[in-house]
Amino acid sequence: MGERRTFVLTDAMHDVWVEDFAVDGASLEPEALRGCMVSKRRLRGGRRDGVDLIRVETGGIAFEVVPTRGMGLWRASLGGDRVGWDSPTKDGPIHPAYVQPHDLGGIGWLEGFDELMVRCGLMNNGAPFREGDATHPLHGRIGNIPAWYVAVHVDLEPPHAITIEGRVAESFLFGGGVELTTTYTTTPGSNAVTVRDEFANVKDQPVDMQILYHWNFGPPHLEEGSRFAAPLKTVVPRNPRAVEGLAAYDAYGPPEPGFVEQVYFCELHAEGGKTAAMLRNRAGDKAVALRYGVDGLPCFSLWKNTGGLRDGYVTGLEPGTNYPNPRPFEKERGRVVTIPVDGRHVAETTLEVLAGRAAVAALEAEIARIQAQGEPVVHPKSSEPFAG
Amino acid sequence: MGERRTFVLTDAMHDVWVEDFAVDGASLEPEALRGCMVSKRRLRGGRRDGVDLIRVETGGIAFEVVPTRGMGLWRASLGGDRVGWDSPTKDGPIHPAYVQPHDLGGIGWLEGFDELMVRCGLMNNGAPFREGDATHPLHGRIGNIPAWYVAVHVDLEPPHAITIEGRVAESFLFGGGVELTTTYTTTPGSNAVTVRDEFANVKDQPVDMQILYHWNFGPPHLEEGSRFAAPLKTVVPRNPRAVEGLAAYDAYGPPEPGFVEQVYFCELHAEGGKTAAMLRNRAGDKAVALRYGVDGLPCFSLWKNTGGLRDGYVTGLEPGTNYPNPRPFEKERGRVVTIPVDGRHVAETTLEVLAGRAAVAALEAEIARIQAQGEPVVHPKSSEPFAG
Amino acid sequence: MGERRTFVLTDAMHDVWVEDFAVDGASLEPEALRGCMVSKRRLRGGRRDGVDLIRVETGGIAFEVVPTRGMGLWRASLGGDRVGWDSPTKDGPIHPAYVQPHDLGGIGWLEGFDELMVRCGLMNNGAPFREGDATHPLHGRIGNIPAWYVAVHVDLEPPHAITIEGRVAESFLFGGGVELTTTYTTTPGSNAVTVRDEFANVKDQPVDMQILYHWNFGPPHLEEGSRFAAPLKTVVPRNPRAVEGLAAYDAYGPPEPGFVEQVYFCELHAEGGKTAAMLRNRAGDKAVALRYGVDGLPCFSLWKNTGGLRDGYVTGLEPGTNYPNPRPFEKERGRVVTIPVDGRHVAETTLEVLAGRAAVAALEAEIARIQAQGEPVVHPKSSEPFAG
Repeated sequence: MGERRTFVLTDAMHDVWVEDFAVDGASLEPEALRGCMVSKRRLRGGRRDGVDLIRVETGGIAFEVVPTRGMGLWRASLGGDRVGWDSPTKDGPIHPAYVQPHDLGGIGWLEGFDELMVRCGLMNNGAPFREGDATHPLHGRIGNIPAWYVAVHVDLEPPHAITIEGRVAESFLFGGGVELTTTYTTTPGSNAVTVRDEFANVKDQPVDMQILYHWNFGPPHLEEGSRFAAPLKTVVPRNPRAVEGLAAYDAYGPPEPGFVEQVYFCELHAEGGKTAAMLRNRAGDKAVALRYGVDGLPCFSLWKNTGGLRDGYVTGLEPGTNYPNPRPFEKERGRVVTIPVDGRHVAETTLEVLAGRAAVAALEAEIARIQAQGEPVVHPKSSEPFAG
Repeated sequence: MGERRTFVLTDAMHDVWVEDFAVDGASLEPEALRGCMVSKRRLRGGRRDGVDLIRVETGGIAFEVVPTRGMGLWRASLGGDRVGWDSPTKDGPIHPAYVQPHDLGGIGWLEGFDELMVRCGLMNNGAPFREGDATHPLHGRIGNIPAWYVAVHVDLEPPHAITIEGRVAESFLFGGGVELTTTYTTTPGSNAVTVRDEFANVKDQPVDMQILYHWNFGPPHLEEGSRFAAPLKTVVPRNPRAVEGLAAYDAYGPPEPGFVEQVYFCELHAEGGKTAAMLRNRAGDKAVALRYGVDGLPCFSLWKNTGGLRDGYVTGLEPGTNYPNPRPFEKERGRVVTIPVDGRHVAETTLEVLAGRAAVAALEAEIARIQAQGEPVVHPKSSEPFAG
Repeated sequence: MGERRTFVLTDAMHDVWVEDFAVDGASLEPEALRGCMVSKRRLRGGRRDGVDLIRVETGGIAFEVVPTRGMGLWRASLGGDRVGWDSPTKDGPIHPAYVQPHDLGGIGWLEGFDELMVRCGLMNNGAPFREGDATHPLHGRIGNIPAWYVAVHVDLEPPHAITIEGRVAESFLFGGGVELTTTYTTTPGSNAVTVRDEFANVKDQPVDMQILYHWNFGPPHLEEGSRFAAPLKTVVPRNPRAVEGLAAYDAYGPPEPGFVEQVYFCELHAEGGKTAAMLRNRAGDKAVALRYGVDGLPCFSLWKNTGGLRDGYVTGLEPGTNYPNPRPFEKERGRVVTIPVDGRHVAETTLEVLAGRAAVAALEAEIARIQAQGEPVVHPKSSEPFAG
């Protein structure tokens, strides 16, 4: 790695916290950084009061990261196109102080849910479940834990990577034990951002962990006639409701108030360990894609929730270490990661935003090529108890 | 509407938030506004840290609104008389971060309860109840949701209305779906403030809603010998404890440590759709009154809680869409509002503070005139299961 | 009391809050105060965002108090020796907004637990328990309630006491009813700090209260070969696991990942109402001691949790009004304090940090002298249901 400028915005353990920050690429030496900007501010008022927000502009993709909400990716855009969705939680990003995870039988997490990408984990993800006296709330805790460390890195040498780094600890006496170190990396003019996460065991005993990346897309990438594509090995409908939509699991309808969500649990083929999943619009001239390694993220869940526009018209493309079933169920099936002492689990995903028929068609061809390894096996009914 | 000055103090979605604000009527053109003042500050320290508070002075009534606590009305005064009560929560207004609604079996809302008027709702109000895996906490969530929009309006033309406007959203994926737009309006020198609430359905499906206005009064309006008056159509004691006090339901005793609360569910007569309920002191020279339309607020609950002065010596006059029973019970009896798509429910209440025997007697006469429509039917025992 | 300088840092009810504060002893008249410093700052970033922290330096002991976390004692040091422990919650002190007491079946308190001394109470302490519909969470609420009043006092006359005062209210309608007024007092160059707590009934009815002081020590005072010493009257192992360690209840092993905690419930002999408990290192040249009156704190719990260094290698010396069993169980045995109307309960504990063999040996001799009143009665098995 060549020369690099680093700006530490938060290091809680050393009393570092920067309220307002901006670095304009034009102020740095390399010409290539002109038009790039990284800024940070603290939001004020309403339920976003006290939330730190980092904005990255590259001339190509622009995106916003929320250290206060577990380093989630709030939203992105490319050209005029928004990447994300319209949550009924419209005044976000919501400060964790206003989220009651145990509200509503353990689904209070939804009160703050409005991100393009939110991590679900790390002690559990998926639906709430009871374990002895404890209820583990929907999608766990990491999305509502502020990062204790945040830094911005700008490489002064090509390809001039711009990186947002954050560290989030989910660890306490008798529980947790994992620290996430995440980096969001992009380059000037890029149409992509790569999220690389290291989950380190910070205890002296092996620690169980689950992670699911809840990527959420609405218009303009989601619309009537949009299609999902990925090199599918297997598709399992989660429950009878998902079975109803099985014939068209990869196609989307228009906003439909009262639509009940459908979820499909998938395995994907990979090439050299890498795979890709995409959502394209009807015309086939706009798409979003996730590229990632199946070693770190062997499970893929497709969430279709094409309700009314104001109810949350959205689809989730969700790579994970597991499916969003209760942890004990996943554990039995070997879908919970155990990180050894001093060990770590790594997962890396790249979000690409594609514009134009050529780019979309090229990715579709690439997916088709991987799919050539074998036809998808589509299970006609829920194969698992929690899927039923 | 004539010329009007507007000051936006919070618009979270557009990054507007004003930490300190004051407009002195003397700085505005109309002579009538002299002696009026609207100011806003952020409280610091203890459990009020981070709470925004707006103070309105008119030369007559003065009052304080708390955007951070769902636009509740913290307290008011007229002349030397406080309007409100002394809560054992003495270090309020309490920031929602310190309220655990699910504490103590779902009554943790009480930890922050100290307002002159707090809204109870919107997904539910009344006692906590189970619905499947979910517990709905006492008096719902709206009282602990900060307003995402707050503005001050001052009319430059007579009658020079001074208005505090706030918007509070209780909406998220798979839940809620109502946005409150409230205005508190008064005029220079007035002895009254009018609270007008619009509850808008912000989803693409019909949404159920409950609202109860928990108006709370202690000394000097509440004392031994104080009386409650309203044009009563029916009075139903909530439970056997309330039956014990039925013979003197409209009279108040002295502070009595260990006193167990008594609640009466009432219907009120109205004239031209409007009714009035009042609490007057023993001498009949001080009173507080609520005037409101029974269309928007068909139910009235009277809460008598004359415990020790330091335990909470207080009575609640509580107009609502329903009685504070579990929502399913109220729903069965048609006392839950269903707001259609793009629809709204409106409720308007005016608090009047009366000083002097003449003013008090005039209101008593007005209530007596409405009461002339028919004698109150007082049920000798609890007529409903949840009342028993 | 002679002349005294007082600095009020927080008085929430009167809008007093000081963001940054420092008084250097050198700026005050008495020579003896040179080298002393009291400072206060607000922490920013991560989960400590918004936490107020007070630091006291005396030239001897230094310590930090956290008003935002119930006036807990975060950590201390003397010379080069840290007094405290390494919690897996490493980014503390944690703001109460990030603690969910009802998480994990009621042990969410642990998410913020990292103090040298944290108060457990006041409505309950010990393990979570159900009481009707309510779950009372582990160790109660006081540790997560911010102080509404904070002041620094410096005596200008010998012995130049330096005092941090704080008031924390645990009181609301239908619950709580106790206000803590605490003072942390030390003197220039001292090796000790005295914590004096007054628990006042602020209601008009008798109020039940429990308090347990959770003092927690790790290296260098805790290491393989460290010993616990106190003039023991009785020792009761909490459960079969504690019975396993009974033969060496006063000795400590090395960090041992997977070690399951052991707890011993003790009564202590006293002399003139005072007793002392200590933890010394293997070499016997470093120790920490607690001196306190057994009237206010008749129960003593010893918590041994010698897990891995990164899991929480720690022992707790815990004087209290009771043992950390569910309150109803303690109530039956007369171990719940009932504070009468206008009454108060007082508890005072002095932490001493001892360096050098002579000082350690002297305290051991003192404890042995008190122990001479009678041999400890060590119960061979759990004598109580909750201990089983």
